[in-house]
Amino acid sequence: MKALIFDLDGTLIDSVYPHALAWQETLHGIDMIVPAWEIHRYIGISGRLLVRALGRARGRSFEDGEIEQLETQHDALFREYAPLQVPLPGAAELLKFLREAGVSYGIATTGKRKEIQAALDALQVGNDCVVVDGSSTDKAKPEPDLFTACRRRLRVESSNCLVVGDAVWDVHAARRAGILAVGVLTGGVGEQELSNAGAMRVYRDAGEVLRRIDELGLEL
Amino acid sequence: MKALIFDLDGTLIDSVYPHALAWQETLHGIDMIVPAWEIHRYIGISGRLLVRALGRARGRSFEDGEIEQLETQHDALFREYAPLQVPLPGAAELLKFLREAGVSYGIATTGKRKEIQAALDALQVGNDCVVVDGSSTDKAKPEPDLFTACRRRLRVESSNCLVVGDAVWDVHAARRAGILAVGVLTGGVGEQELSNAGAMRVYRDAGEVLRRIDELGLEL
Repeated sequence: MKALIFDLDGTLIDSVYPHALAWQETLHGIDMIVPAWEIHRYIGISGRLLVRALGRARGRSFEDGEIEQLETQHDALFREYAPLQVPLPGAAELLKFLREAGVSYGIATTGKRKEIQAALDALQVGNDCVVVDGSSTDKAKPEPDLFTACRRRLRVESSNCLVVGDAVWDVHAARRAGILAVGVLTGGVGEQELSNAGAMRVYRDAGEVLRRIDELGLEL
Repeated sequence: MKALIFDLDGTLIDSVYPHALAWQETLHGIDMIVPAWEIHRYIGISGRLLVRALGRARGRSFEDGEIEQLETQHDALFREYAPLQVPLPGAAELLKFLREAGVSYGIATTGKRKEIQAALDALQVGNDCVVVDGSSTDKAKPEPDLFTACRRRLRVESSNCLVVGDAVWDVHAARRAGILAVGVLTGGVGEQELSNAGAMRVYRDAGEVLRRIDELGLEL
């Protein structure tokens, strides 16, 4: 095992809940009343898929242009709800440990680069960190493309790396990319749900991943 | 089976997520950085227990007076995050059905009466509805007192009623009151977690409880 690929929102940064409320308010603005828990379960896929899925369940469909407008509104509300990008416990420390131990890692996220820069700064990862963001592909999670692109940039085989993520979508996308997934609870999804999705292990948070790093089979 | 006892937040009203973010911001104000998912798991117990539990994990303790101040701040922030009290899908319809069918029901919540009035109004329950709120007892969930008090006011034995709730705390408190519990997913807690806690059934939301009402063994 040579490398780790991290999801960002809910895995390294405490941003799932404000994302959910920002989407709820955005959709409320077009008279789509969606309970927060239902949105929560879709955080981690692209805004386009999220809007389409919640709309379909309510008999509504959307043009691409409408969805782009909604995404812009969501981004503005998200910045209001979460003006600070707060790393989750142990996240910055885990990345620092990996750098010092010489273990490759990357970040693969559905978020667009300009929206995630504040999060990357808060995590104190340098500009040399491999980051594959949502602007590089139309195929967000649960498609495997983001993880596959990240793995290729890290120059590792799928059997020699692990995905670390908080959402069922991360686990599904990792499996489709042929990569084993490790779950964390910091996005608010329960242990059993992540295990059922196929996570090989589930830890409390990035801090626990660090404390139990030898369980992952990395070359340390 | 003669009566149903409902939890309020996350079961009838879509308020768990704004409660979580309001607590997160309140605690941030005293330099206690707590990830949202960790707070989410404590929603449903009293503010006092929540603050004590999250504080203890971080080596901090609080006087009663300090906690009251924090609760006041939380209440104000909650009203900002959730100016509208939005009933969850099917909640008002379920209560209406029970009234028309002549099935007794009550609401047992940790919230204080003046904070929950807007929610009760949104649910269109009359002033004759049996409501046991947090001001009537110091012993909030997971103590059984709120459910026991509600059951007594409804004049039913514990074996002749059911609790409907979204949180593990509801299920624990119901079991301690000798009452079977039915879980709903609308507070963002997963099905397996509610089942593991001891819920006899888990439904998606109040609307599904209504559609499958005959599964509960009520005298209809």
